[in-house]
Amino acid sequence: MIDKTLIESENAARQADLAADYDALGSRLARRGVDIAALTDRAAGFGVAIPSWGTGTGGTRFARFPGEGEPAGIMDKLDDCGVIHQLTAATPKVSLHIPWDKADPALLLEKAQEVGLGFDAMNSNTFQDHADHPLSYKYGSLSHTDTATRRQAVEHNLECIEIGQAIGSKALTVWIGDGSNFPGQTSLSRQFDRYLDSMKAIYAGLPGDWRIFSEHKIYEPAFYSTVVQDWGTSLMIAQELGDQAQCLVDLGHHAPNVNIEMIVARLIRAGKLGGFHFNDSKYGDDDLDSGTIEPFRLFLVFNELVELEDTPGLDLAHMIDQSHNVTDPIESLIISACEIQRAYVQASLVDRAALEEYRQANDPLMAAATLRAAFRTDVEPILAEARRRSGAAIDPVTAYRASGYRAQVAAKRPKSAGGGGGIV
Amino acid sequence: MIDKTLIESENAARQADLAADYDALGSRLARRGVDIAALTDRAAGFGVAIPSWGTGTGGTRFARFPGEGEPAGIMDKLDDCGVIHQLTAATPKVSLHIPWDKADPALLLEKAQEVGLGFDAMNSNTFQDHADHPLSYKYGSLSHTDTATRRQAVEHNLECIEIGQAIGSKALTVWIGDGSNFPGQTSLSRQFDRYLDSMKAIYAGLPGDWRIFSEHKIYEPAFYSTVVQDWGTSLMIAQELGDQAQCLVDLGHHAPNVNIEMIVARLIRAGKLGGFHFNDSKYGDDDLDSGTIEPFRLFLVFNELVELEDTPGLDLAHMIDQSHNVTDPIESLIISACEIQRAYVQASLVDRAALEEYRQANDPLMAAATLRAAFRTDVEPILAEARRRSGAAIDPVTAYRASGYRAQVAAKRPKSAGGGGGIV
Amino acid sequence: MIDKTLIESENAARQADLAADYDALGSRLARRGVDIAALTDRAAGFGVAIPSWGTGTGGTRFARFPGEGEPAGIMDKLDDCGVIHQLTAATPKVSLHIPWDKADPALLLEKAQEVGLGFDAMNSNTFQDHADHPLSYKYGSLSHTDTATRRQAVEHNLECIEIGQAIGSKALTVWIGDGSNFPGQTSLSRQFDRYLDSMKAIYAGLPGDWRIFSEHKIYEPAFYSTVVQDWGTSLMIAQELGDQAQCLVDLGHHAPNVNIEMIVARLIRAGKLGGFHFNDSKYGDDDLDSGTIEPFRLFLVFNELVELEDTPGLDLAHMIDQSHNVTDPIESLIISACEIQRAYVQASLVDRAALEEYRQANDPLMAAATLRAAFRTDVEPILAEARRRSGAAIDPVTAYRASGYRAQVAAKRPKSAGGGGGIV
Amino acid sequence: MIDKTLIESENAARQADLAADYDALGSRLARRGVDIAALTDRAAGFGVAIPSWGTGTGGTRFARFPGEGEPAGIMDKLDDCGVIHQLTAATPKVSLHIPWDKADPALLLEKAQEVGLGFDAMNSNTFQDHADHPLSYKYGSLSHTDTATRRQAVEHNLECIEIGQAIGSKALTVWIGDGSNFPGQTSLSRQFDRYLDSMKAIYAGLPGDWRIFSEHKIYEPAFYSTVVQDWGTSLMIAQELGDQAQCLVDLGHHAPNVNIEMIVARLIRAGKLGGFHFNDSKYGDDDLDSGTIEPFRLFLVFNELVELEDTPGLDLAHMIDQSHNVTDPIESLIISACEIQRAYVQASLVDRAALEEYRQANDPLMAAATLRAAFRTDVEPILAEARRRSGAAIDPVTAYRASGYRAQVAAKRPKSAGGGGGIV
Repeated sequence: MIDKTLIESENAARQADLAADYDALGSRLARRGVDIAALTDRAAGFGVAIPSWGTGTGGTRFARFPGEGEPAGIMDKLDDCGVIHQLTAATPKVSLHIPWDKADPALLLEKAQEVGLGFDAMNSNTFQDHADHPLSYKYGSLSHTDTATRRQAVEHNLECIEIGQAIGSKALTVWIGDGSNFPGQTSLSRQFDRYLDSMKAIYAGLPGDWRIFSEHKIYEPAFYSTVVQDWGTSLMIAQELGDQAQCLVDLGHHAPNVNIEMIVARLIRAGKLGGFHFNDSKYGDDDLDSGTIEPFRLFLVFNELVELEDTPGLDLAHMIDQSHNVTDPIESLIISACEIQRAYVQASLVDRAALEEYRQANDPLMAAATLRAAFRTDVEPILAEARRRSGAAIDPVTAYRASGYRAQVAAKRPKSAGGGGGIV
Repeated sequence: MIDKTLIESENAARQADLAADYDALGSRLARRGVDIAALTDRAAGFGVAIPSWGTGTGGTRFARFPGEGEPAGIMDKLDDCGVIHQLTAATPKVSLHIPWDKADPALLLEKAQEVGLGFDAMNSNTFQDHADHPLSYKYGSLSHTDTATRRQAVEHNLECIEIGQAIGSKALTVWIGDGSNFPGQTSLSRQFDRYLDSMKAIYAGLPGDWRIFSEHKIYEPAFYSTVVQDWGTSLMIAQELGDQAQCLVDLGHHAPNVNIEMIVARLIRAGKLGGFHFNDSKYGDDDLDSGTIEPFRLFLVFNELVELEDTPGLDLAHMIDQSHNVTDPIESLIISACEIQRAYVQASLVDRAALEEYRQANDPLMAAATLRAAFRTDVEPILAEARRRSGAAIDPVTAYRASGYRAQVAAKRPKSAGGGGGIV
Repeated sequence: MIDKTLIESENAARQADLAADYDALGSRLARRGVDIAALTDRAAGFGVAIPSWGTGTGGTRFARFPGEGEPAGIMDKLDDCGVIHQLTAATPKVSLHIPWDKADPALLLEKAQEVGLGFDAMNSNTFQDHADHPLSYKYGSLSHTDTATRRQAVEHNLECIEIGQAIGSKALTVWIGDGSNFPGQTSLSRQFDRYLDSMKAIYAGLPGDWRIFSEHKIYEPAFYSTVVQDWGTSLMIAQELGDQAQCLVDLGHHAPNVNIEMIVARLIRAGKLGGFHFNDSKYGDDDLDSGTIEPFRLFLVFNELVELEDTPGLDLAHMIDQSHNVTDPIESLIISACEIQRAYVQASLVDRAALEEYRQANDPLMAAATLRAAFRTDVEPILAEARRRSGAAIDPVTAYRASGYRAQVAAKRPKSAGGGGGIV
Repeated sequence: MIDKTLIESENAARQADLAADYDALGSRLARRGVDIAALTDRAAGFGVAIPSWGTGTGGTRFARFPGEGEPAGIMDKLDDCGVIHQLTAATPKVSLHIPWDKADPALLLEKAQEVGLGFDAMNSNTFQDHADHPLSYKYGSLSHTDTATRRQAVEHNLECIEIGQAIGSKALTVWIGDGSNFPGQTSLSRQFDRYLDSMKAIYAGLPGDWRIFSEHKIYEPAFYSTVVQDWGTSLMIAQELGDQAQCLVDLGHHAPNVNIEMIVARLIRAGKLGGFHFNDSKYGDDDLDSGTIEPFRLFLVFNELVELEDTPGLDLAHMIDQSHNVTDPIESLIISACEIQRAYVQASLVDRAALEEYRQANDPLMAAATLRAAFRTDVEPILAEARRRSGAAIDPVTAYRASGYRAQVAAKRPKSAGGGGGIV
C-alpha cells in the first residue's frame, strides 16, 4: 500500500486549485439548478470492480511485452488492486478468475481485508486447457459434442461458485470461447442446445442469493460463429435459465456500428441486465482503457443507466475488463475507473425535466443539446473532491508515480517472461 | 402475359443440352447417393413471394432513373409479377404494400387469378406521410409521442389487415422507420413501450388464422437509433405479443459482419422465425439482387433452413425485398427468384449424415468441405428442368427478352417521371 | 436578416454569466499556461462554409418531411445562410451546387453582399439527370462507357467553373455517384481510366488560381463499387491531375472503424489535403449534425490539423455537408458550425510541448491524458465570447428562435411538397 | 514425404470417375467455347507459396491448442511443406520467417531440394522481441521514437535479405505491428516519417533483382492506429521508396465492407501491386482457410487478376498467410491452395468477350450473370486432372490421411507445449 502521508502531501499541493475549480463549477451548476454537493455524494458512492487479471500486462496473439514488477500471483494482484482503490476510492471490489487466482479462501479473505477490498463476481475459464483437466477445450467446453468434456466444464464452474461462496462473492460470470471457425464445423442449433443443458446444470448449483451472468461476444477466439454471439442469444439464455440468470454487457463485444445504449435499454426492460464489463475499443474487442476511444459512447450508456436507475429490481455489477499492453496496468485501471465514474457523474447532471419536454415537443435539436451540455461539463473537480473527501488522491496517477510503488514491487517480484508468439 | 408458344420454342432450342447436362449431373449425384429426381421435385415445390413494389425501378436519396414501361399501378404490377411467375414457376404469390397498392379487392382477386398468382403477406406503410392521414410521421408512427398519431398508425395497420382478408392474405408485415437521429432525441425505453402498446392494439385486431411479422433493421431512415433495431428486440416483441407474432429476417438489415445464419438458428429455436425478406448487400441495406454479392451467405442461410426443416411448427414466408435501380426490375426478380431457389437446392444436397459424423468427430476441415461440396455443385440443370416441367422457361431472362414484353408495356404505359429521390 | 437589437438584447441578458464563466475559465487555463485571449482570437478567426443545399430539409430514399418556410431557391437559401453567419460569425461563405443554385451571377453577388457572405467551392452534379442534359447519368457520368455522356458531364463541370469565376469562387468540388451495383457490371480498371480522362479535361479548364477537389466515398448511390471509393484512389487522382488537384475528406464517407485522423495526416504529408465536408455519422453516410454522434472523433481530426497547421502550403477549405431531416436546417447548421469551432478550439489548447515529451518518453497513458484534458475542457465561454465580440449571438439557437425568422419566411415562401424520397 | 505408390493407388481408385466428370465438363465448356485442355494447363501452371509458420498450429491471445506432431523447427516445416506440394502440385515455394526459421542456408537449400521446393519472399519480424536484440519493440520498431531501436530493426531486415540471398529468395515482405493504442500516444505524421526513413535504409540494402513488399493492415496488434493502416499509405510508401518497392495485399487486413478487388485494380494501375497474402475472414484478421468463408470474394479478386493479367510488368507473388487453430495445418494448407487455384481457374473461364459487350451495352444484369456463370462452374475435375497429371493426388486430403503422415511425424517430433494465455 502507499503511504498515506504521501497522498496527503500530494493532495495538499493541489487543494487550493481544486477548491477554486470546485467552487466555480458549483456556481455554474447552481445556475442550471444542479446541486454540486449532491453530485459529489453520487460520485463518492460509485464503485466499479477491478479484474484481478487486469493488473498484469496483457498481449495479443503476436506478442506480450511485460513491464516491471508484474504480479506473480493473486496476492500480488490484490496488492495492486488495493493501491488502485486507495488512490481512487472507486474500486472497492475485485473480480477473480479461476484457475488463475486459485488460492486458499482464508488467505484470500485475509489479504483482501488487509488491502481494503471485497470480492465481486467470479469468472470461470474454459477457453484454455487446465493442467488438472484431463480433457481439452480445443473444440469447445460447455457446448462440446462430448458429454464428458461438457461435464468437466460444468464441474469447473461449480468449483468457481464454491470458491466464491467461501470469499463472499455473489455472482458467477460465464464467458466461453465456444463456437466454430468454419461454416459446417458445428450445428449452430444443437451446439446451443448443449450449451443450454450445461448452463442448466450450473444454474442448478447456484446458491439462492447468487446470480449467474451470461456474457455474449460476436467473435474471437472463434472466427466464424460463437455460441453466445449477441445479446439476443444472451437474453434467450437468461430467460431459459430463470430469475437468477442475467446478461452481462461487455462494451467491446458487439458488431461494428451497433448502438450499445439501446441494448442496455432493452435488457433493462426485459429485467435481464446484470452488469457490465467496461473497456473501450475502435475495431474489435480491443480491450482498451475505458473512455479513451469514444467517451461519448460511454456517457450514453450511463445516460440510460441514470435515466432508468429507479427501475425496480435493477442491481448492476459494474466491472472493468481490459488488456493493458503498453501501459502500467495499475495506471490504466486508475484512469479507467475515473473515466467510468466521470461518465456516471456527467450522466447524472443531465437536465432530465428539460430533456423530457424537448422529447414530448419533438425538438430533437434541443434534446440532443441537453445531453451534450451535460457531457461537455468538466466534472473533474467533482471527481477530485469526492476522492479527496474519501482520503484518496486528487490526482491519482501523479500520486502513484510519486509513490514509487512500481519500482518497489519490481524489486521484490520475479521478472516476467515475455515473448509469446509463433501464434500468427 | 407472354405467349406460351414463345416459351415452348425457346425451351425447344435448349432441351437437348439441358437433358445432357441433367443426365451428367444425375450420374454424378448418384455417385454421392443423391437422387436428382427428388431434388428436382424439391426445386419445383419451392416458391418465394414477389413484392409488388419491386416491379418498379427504385432509387436512392440522390436520384431515381426510371426505365421504360414502369408499372403505373397495382394492376400493371400484377401483370409484371405474372410474367415472372410464368417464366420461373417459382414466384406463386405477390406481397402488397398499402397504400401504394390500394384497390378494390374484387378487382385485385380477379387480376391475380388472371395472371395465376395468390397474395402473400400485407405490408403497411407508416414511414411516409399519406395524403389521407392528417397527422405526419416525421417524428414517428407506432412509437410517436403523440397518442393520436399512434392511433392513426394503428388504424392504418388494421386497414391493411382488412384489405388482406378480402384477398386471401394471412399475414401482416410491420416495418417502421421510427427511431431517432440524435442521442437524446427520444427515450429509448419509453419509445419502445409506446411501440409495444401500438403493436398490441394491432395484434388485438389480427384474425385467428393470421400472423404478424416484426421486421428489424439496424438503421435507415433513422440514423442514430431505430426502435426495432435487431433480432433481439424483434424477439422481445414477438414474445410479448403472443403466438401469432413472429420475426421476419431481411438479409440486409444487420450490422456489418453479423452471422445471419446464427440468427436464423436462434429464432427457429425460440419458435419465432416467421420468414424472410431476401436480397443481397455489401454495405448497408443495399437491396441488391439476391445471391449476387455473397452467394455463399445465402446458401448458409438455406443450410440452416434445410437442416431444421422438420422443426415442428416451422412455416416460413419467403419473400423478396429489393430495389432495382439499374436493371429491368422484372429481370432482377427473375434472377433473384432463381438464385434463392438455387441456394435451397444446393442446401438440399448437403450430405447431412456425413456432416454429422464429421461434427461428432471434431473434424472441422471435412465438415466445412462437405458444405462446400454442395455449394459448388452446379445445380442449374435441376432448376432448369424443374422450370421446364412446370411449363416455365429453361432460360427465363432470354425468354423474357425474346418476348418483347418490356417494349409492349412501354408502348401502353405512361412514361414515369424520373429525377428526385427514389422511394423503395 | 435578424434585427440587430434582438441579438443585442439577447446577449445583454447573458453577458454577466458569460463574463463570470469566461473569467473562471481564463484563470483555470492560465494555470495550465494557456492564454484565453489568444484562444478567443483563434476562435474568432475560424470559419466554415455552409452548403446552400443544407438550408432545405433533406430526406432519405424512403421519405422527405419538409418543414415550414423551406427556401424556394438560391436567394432564399442565401438569406438563410446570412442569418446563420449573423448569429454565429463562423460561417462567412456559402458553397453552391449547380444546377440547383443556377442564377444570374450578378444577382448572386448582390444578394451575397446584402447578407454579408462570400462564395466557397462550387459543386457540380452528375449524380442526377438534368432537364437540359439530353443524356442520362443512370449508368455513370464522368466514367460512363459512352463518350458523349462523359463529354456532357465534363461540360457541366466546366460550366460550374465558369459560374464560379463570375462570383469569386476559387475551387470546384467533384463528387460523383459513378460505380456499379453488381460484380461484373463495370470494368473496375477501365472505368477509372475513363474517369481520369474526364477529370483531365476538366482540369485543363481550371483557372490558374483555382483548385479542384476530388471527393471519395465508399458507397451510395452505387452499392457494389464506386469509382472514387477511398482516399487512396482520391490520392491517385490528385497526383495524376497535378498541383491544383487535392483531396476532400467527408467525415461520413469511410468504411466502418476507419481511423479518419490518420487519413488526414497522410494526405497532409502527400501535400494533397484540400479540405473537408464536415458532418457526423454512426452507420453510413448519415450526414448528421457535426459533433453530435462522436465528438471525440471530430476533436481528433482537428488535433491533427492543429498539430500540422504550420505545414507549408496547407490551405484547407472547411465546409459542412449534412442532411437535416428532422430539425430546422438553420438550427442544425448553427449547431454544427459551433461544434466544429469547438473542436478547433479544444484542439488548440492541447499542451503540445507536454504531449511531445510524453511521446518521446513512450508514456502513452499521459500522452492520451493530455489530449483528453483538452477535449474535456468546456470551451463554450470562449466560443460565446468570440461570437459576442463579433456582434453575433452568445446563444445563437435561442436568439434565432426568439427572432421569429422561421415563421416570417414561412409566411412568405411557398409550401414545400413533401412525400417522396428526399435528395440531399 | 509420402510414398508415391500410395498416391498412385489412391488416384487409381478415383481415375474412372474423374475421367467421366472431366469429359462431361469438357463437353459443357466446349458448348460455351471454352477449351478444357487449355484451362487444365493454366491450372497446372499455377502456384502459391506456403508460409513456413503455417505448418504449426496457431492460436489466439486466449489460448493455443497444439496438435499432434507439431513441427519443431524449420526442417520439420519444410518436410510438411514438401508433403503439401507433393499432394497438390500447387505450392512450389516456401516463404520463410526470420528469426523463427533461421538456419544454415546450405542446410536450408539441401532440405528444400530434398523435398522439391524453392524459397519465396522472406519475412522479417519486429513485432516480437528477439532473444538476441537488446532493445524491445514494445513501443515500435521501424517507427520507434528511439534511433537505436529503429536501427536495430533495420539491421534485422537487412539480415533477412542476406539470408534470403543465400537461399535464392528475391523479395522481402515487411509487415510491422507499429502504431498506437491510444489517441495522442504517437504523432501520426512523425511516426510515419520515421517509418519511411527506416524503410529507405532497408531499400538501400536491397539487391538490384529483389523487390520489397509493404503490407498494410488496419489494426492488430495496435488498436487505435497502425502506421501502415491501409493501401493508400502502402502506396505512398512504395512510391517514395522506388521501383523495387510494391504493395502486398492480405485479404484479411481491411476495414469491414471494403471492396478488395477495387484495391487490386487500383494498385495494378499504379504499377505497385506486388502480391498477396491469401486467407479468408469474417470479422477481423481471422486468418481462416482461403475460400472457406466468402468464396465469391476470392473469385472476384482473381477475376481482376485474370482480366488484367497482360498488364506490362505485372509479376505477382502469391502467398498463403493463415492461422490454423482447429485443423491439421497441413490439411488446411492443402485445402487453401486448392481453393485459391479453383478461384483462378473459375476466373479464367469467364466469357470476357461477352462480358465486355454487356458492359458497353450497360447491361449490368447480364454482365453480372456472366461472372456468376463462371463462378458456379464446378471446376473440380480440372483441378483434380491437373494434379493427377503432375503426379499429385486427385483427392489430396484423403490421400494425406491414408498416408499416415501425421502419426509418423507425431511419433518422431517432440510434443508441443500448449497453453498460452493469461493474455486477455
